Amino acid sequence: MRFTTESTSSDGTTERDFVLDGVPGVLWTPPGTPTGLVLGAHGGGQHKRAPGAIARAHLCAAAGLAVVTLDSPGHGERPRTAEDDRFITEIRSRITAGRDAGALLAEYNALLAARAIPEWRSVLDTLPDTGVLPGTGATTGFWGTSMGSAIGIPLVAAEPRIRAAVFGLVGATEALTRAAAAITVPVRFLLQWDDQLIARDAGLAMFDAFATRQKSLHANPGGHGEVPEHELPAAVTFLAG
Amino acid sequence: MRFTTESTSSDGTTERDFVLDGVPGVLWTPPGTPTGLVLGAHGGGQHKRAPGAIARAHLCAAAGLAVVTLDSPGHGERPRTAEDDRFITEIRSRITAGRDAGALLAEYNALLAARAIPEWRSVLDTLPDTGVLPGTGATTGFWGTSMGSAIGIPLVAAEPRIRAAVFGLVGATEALTRAAAAITVPVRFLLQWDDQLIARDAGLAMFDAFATRQKSLHANPGGHGEVPEHELPAAVTFLAG
Repeated sequence: MRFTTESTSSDGTTERDFVLDGVPGVLWTPPGTPTGLVLGAHGGGQHKRAPGAIARAHLCAAAGLAVVTLDSPGHGERPRTAEDDRFITEIRSRITAGRDAGALLAEYNALLAARAIPEWRSVLDTLPDTGVLPGTGATTGFWGTSMGSAIGIPLVAAEPRIRAAVFGLVGATEALTRAAAAITVPVRFLLQWDDQLIARDAGLAMFDAFATRQKSLHANPGGHGEVPEHELPAAVTFLAG
Repeated sequence: MRFTTESTSSDGTTERDFVLDGVPGVLWTPPGTPTGLVLGAHGGGQHKRAPGAIARAHLCAAAGLAVVTLDSPGHGERPRTAEDDRFITEIRSRITAGRDAGALLAEYNALLAARAIPEWRSVLDTLPDTGVLPGTGATTGFWGTSMGSAIGIPLVAAEPRIRAAVFGLVGATEALTRAAAAITVPVRFLLQWDDQLIARDAGLAMFDAFATRQKSLHANPGGHGEVPEHELPAAVTFLAG
């Protein structure tokens, strides 16, 4: 993990760019010793420094949590493969034509997850040795909705170092259902009641699939991108608790 | 509204018993001037001073909110009518026999609501003149699940003085759906994912029916009586906000 830049904003949050095995990421740390670490995955078409990712990082930092994020495969500064291009073109054209893109999106997200999971595990292997995050090993959480959940659900299922997770905006598939059945840590699941990309029943089935008894579904009116503001500090409290 | 007893507990909460038009109730007030008033309705088979009602009152008081509760018709110190007895006997016998008591429970709750709604409106008419609650007129909320929601949903639909509501553990019926379509204040709705009394789809349909855009569904694993502890302070924060 090679840190390339470091700056501190007016709220005291320090931001470090890094590259790990060719994958660019950002680490945000609060003033003082962080009380936990959040793995913050972005959604499809977003990147490590999208406005939502930055807002989330500062909210977490204000609660004493460090946040690490990566550009997902084919996103941000990372090159797209020919396969990425084929999927993206076809998904966009289906959405534009008003056709259902759900199954194709799920298929593409599963491919991205297979590429992203080893990258996130590598972050967990490497970050403790950098010395920038003393004492947060036991309290790592995950936060990622939409494509971030398509990556995060199999990641959290495979990764005992992650102790709590915020997921959402994702529908049940066979692979995600199987992964969710292996998740026993506390889960917060966000569902948009009028999600135009995820059928309501598929979202409810996804929540149903988590094996953990400590899970809460928070459903709110609005479309895929309209999670209400109040869910963000509530998710921070959940991860910090 | 005739106050009969007054005592202050070690956390500074003052508790007053009262009788209003023959209906016994309790008013809990925090130390200092309350920032709001919560109408706290109890569930079926409970009463104004059931453990859950007391715990809720102290949580609210700790957040600066006053709480008023009433014995519902046929509950607590109030006499049961012959009709109450017939319903209760038949509902219990169906539950004991493992048969579905939902429709009968909904029918009974609708009858209780018709009797309880004027009593709650009378509390709102009368309480300001008692002088014990200065300055809370604009911030009245309602909190009642199960039978408390069967009463509360038509009450909040009819009562513009109530500005926010916590409902839950209740399934859609024709009458409740119609009432919910008239509710435009913020709503928090609690649903138990494995509720043995309320079918999951009926609970989800109830959430769907509220006209307000400011509504959140919080669903958690467990049966009808197993709402997790963390939802209580979260509901207080919602009502205090």
